[in-house]
Amino acid sequence: MPATMCTFEFSQIGAKLAGRSGILELMDDMGRALTSDPEMRMLGGGNPAAVPAFTALVRQRMHEILADGDAFERLLLHYDPPQGNPRFRNALAALLRSKFGWEIGPENLAVTSGGQSAFFHLFNLLVGTFTGGRKKKILLPLAPEYIGYADQGLEPDLFVSCRPGMEWPQGLDGHVFKYTIDFAAVETALARGNIGAIAASRPTNPSGNVLTDAEVARLSALAAAYGIPLILDNAYGTPFPGVMFAPAKPFWSPQTVVVLGLSKLGLPNTRTAIIIAPEAIATAIGSLTAVVGLANGTLGQQIVLPWVESGRILEFGPQIIRPFYEARSVAATAWARECFTAAGVDWALHANEGTFFHWLWLKNLRIPARELYERLKARKVLTVPGEYFFFGLKEDWPHRHECLRLNYSREPEVVRAGYQIIAEEAAKVMA
Amino acid sequence: MPATMCTFEFSQIGAKLAGRSGILELMDDMGRALTSDPEMRMLGGGNPAAVPAFTALVRQRMHEILADGDAFERLLLHYDPPQGNPRFRNALAALLRSKFGWEIGPENLAVTSGGQSAFFHLFNLLVGTFTGGRKKKILLPLAPEYIGYADQGLEPDLFVSCRPGMEWPQGLDGHVFKYTIDFAAVETALARGNIGAIAASRPTNPSGNVLTDAEVARLSALAAAYGIPLILDNAYGTPFPGVMFAPAKPFWSPQTVVVLGLSKLGLPNTRTAIIIAPEAIATAIGSLTAVVGLANGTLGQQIVLPWVESGRILEFGPQIIRPFYEARSVAATAWARECFTAAGVDWALHANEGTFFHWLWLKNLRIPARELYERLKARKVLTVPGEYFFFGLKEDWPHRHECLRLNYSREPEVVRAGYQIIAEEAAKVMA
Repeated sequence: MPATMCTFEFSQIGAKLAGRSGILELMDDMGRALTSDPEMRMLGGGNPAAVPAFTALVRQRMHEILADGDAFERLLLHYDPPQGNPRFRNALAALLRSKFGWEIGPENLAVTSGGQSAFFHLFNLLVGTFTGGRKKKILLPLAPEYIGYADQGLEPDLFVSCRPGMEWPQGLDGHVFKYTIDFAAVETALARGNIGAIAASRPTNPSGNVLTDAEVARLSALAAAYGIPLILDNAYGTPFPGVMFAPAKPFWSPQTVVVLGLSKLGLPNTRTAIIIAPEAIATAIGSLTAVVGLANGTLGQQIVLPWVESGRILEFGPQIIRPFYEARSVAATAWARECFTAAGVDWALHANEGTFFHWLWLKNLRIPARELYERLKARKVLTVPGEYFFFGLKEDWPHRHECLRLNYSREPEVVRAGYQIIAEEAAKVMA
Repeated sequence: MPATMCTFEFSQIGAKLAGRSGILELMDDMGRALTSDPEMRMLGGGNPAAVPAFTALVRQRMHEILADGDAFERLLLHYDPPQGNPRFRNALAALLRSKFGWEIGPENLAVTSGGQSAFFHLFNLLVGTFTGGRKKKILLPLAPEYIGYADQGLEPDLFVSCRPGMEWPQGLDGHVFKYTIDFAAVETALARGNIGAIAASRPTNPSGNVLTDAEVARLSALAAAYGIPLILDNAYGTPFPGVMFAPAKPFWSPQTVVVLGLSKLGLPNTRTAIIIAPEAIATAIGSLTAVVGLANGTLGQQIVLPWVESGRILEFGPQIIRPFYEARSVAATAWARECFTAAGVDWALHANEGTFFHWLWLKNLRIPARELYERLKARKVLTVPGEYFFFGLKEDWPHRHECLRLNYSREPEVVRAGYQIIAEEAAKVMA
């Protein structure tokens, strides 16, 4: 019997998680193109760039590890405890405590196999079904939010999100907009009584928005008032990797869960994220890691360990990572202005305060962004259509069909050519 | 407000997965001892040994990767597609097809972040709750089975297991027993109609039993008759890493799911397992990986890639891995005989046909194995008590309190000292 004749039924949860998801399509697109389509202009996924000053440091660290007795063998051979390498957790807790005054110890830290796993664990731990059949949801105070969260619920309908306000910092003709949290909507959602946690990425993936210190403080106060955690996804943010171009203070409080990672520093394939949380949550995440994945790979932790112990990891953002991406942001913004203006399309970019994404708004697009994405892919420009980022939003909002997320961190000529093609294709379908 | 004052409620699934589990205790014990208690005799977890001939090859591969242009940077920087690295999947499918005639292509393969993740995904995909509220379970045809499965269900009571038969291949005074599948019990369990898959590790973790080719063929026929998959966990088995001392053919069929891994070859911290399955299952596992973890680290795949392409990976078992562990098995068996006989305890070992565990049966123990484990830990000998391996077994069986799993792959003097202490402590509590 050929394998194709075997069909097996999947459980309800299995069928839900294994369905076609936005994050799967994005990763499949990117992985396929990276490994088998060198012609593709990769403005799609969140793959960081090769930042030469950082990759040189990592290469040097690898040589150091290889030269250090049997350190390399131990690194590959000895499982860490599920909650993460003890020396790494000690060092990072001490650094965050001494530099920012966060009242934490290693017991507040849990390492996970990348940020995606961190959020899968956090969301399903903190919301879903509770004793007595009560249901709780995650509140996303500002849609659009990260595509990777959308399908992570073991149960359907895990998210409630709020449509943001919109500002035009350079005036209505400036082609730059910025989302702001609509706190009235947030408070209305909280008042319904079924919210288990508030979550936001900072800077926001996809828009590059950075929640202001005042917005974060207000979210934290609301979370405290409702006795629920505030989860901040600092994958691109502070205190590292620091892919941020707007001022923003690192924030933690005893009811905040901060997620940091090594991916956007330039080590995505080490699959390393760190959850900083109330002890009960950090302990639970370690337990979840044991049951779901036994232990985390320790490579990323070992590569950065001396930089955590010395505090140097906090300098990479300002000295290496931010300047690299900021230069690409400035160049890409100039090309956007040039290409989209010349093509005569009605366009705007979200203020690029962080991440390495442009969030392009093509107003009055006659086709859904999803279809524009297909046309662009056919012309060898990979993007991510906006529709995937508005999950949890109940109301109809045409905006969701008018946006594209563009990774501008690729080689400048690739980004420029990509933007030119996007402008050409957009011009064909503007009302 | 100090962090310790914040308490948050966990969801039902979260509370279940984050509860104290056997695998968590085992990994915590091992990780703590490895990183902070060098005095501990590590006969506990499944950490493989440093096999010198293999670690030398891995070190050489790492130097090759570092010398190969920007291969090292690409390895850390470029995400693989969620189902695994395309070149690795192509190479492994081609190897298994050409060497063993398995009718598979890369579409039948899915890489996961280690075997624990592979089983978390497989179990929750194939059993649990189905449309209409129907429930299905995993049938383990031979208890004791792997501790790491026990708590992986998103729902409680995921397993049904069968008490095995027992043979005494060296006679009743030989101190060697072997479990055999009780097929009458297996058929009775299947006939109840709520089994979604049959699963077995081969060789069995903890007992070191190797299901015979005839037993596997019979399980496969039963799975086919019921239209359900047979899942074989070959983490220690065939075709690699080959930690097996009894003859056993690699087995695959269109309704079989085989799980292989790089951990017991000596690369546990690369967190790399490979599922070989009907295409629909392999595709679903890739989708689950995207949602739960974005992508897998590619380090393990890149280290072994040339060995998969050349077929050399199949030679490591017979040439390097098996001889190393077999020598330790022979030595440890001799010490067991010496120590336990001298101490006058009533003991037997399961026939050690594979894995690097001794499964010690202390008949007529007056205290539960769980308590003996605590006494041994206090004397700096880490073991795993037998109770954790009998999940899914409804009937009372005193045997479950009389066994210890012992990793005999440590340095010989450590194993010998450990066995001596076990004999001393056991002698104090034999009826």
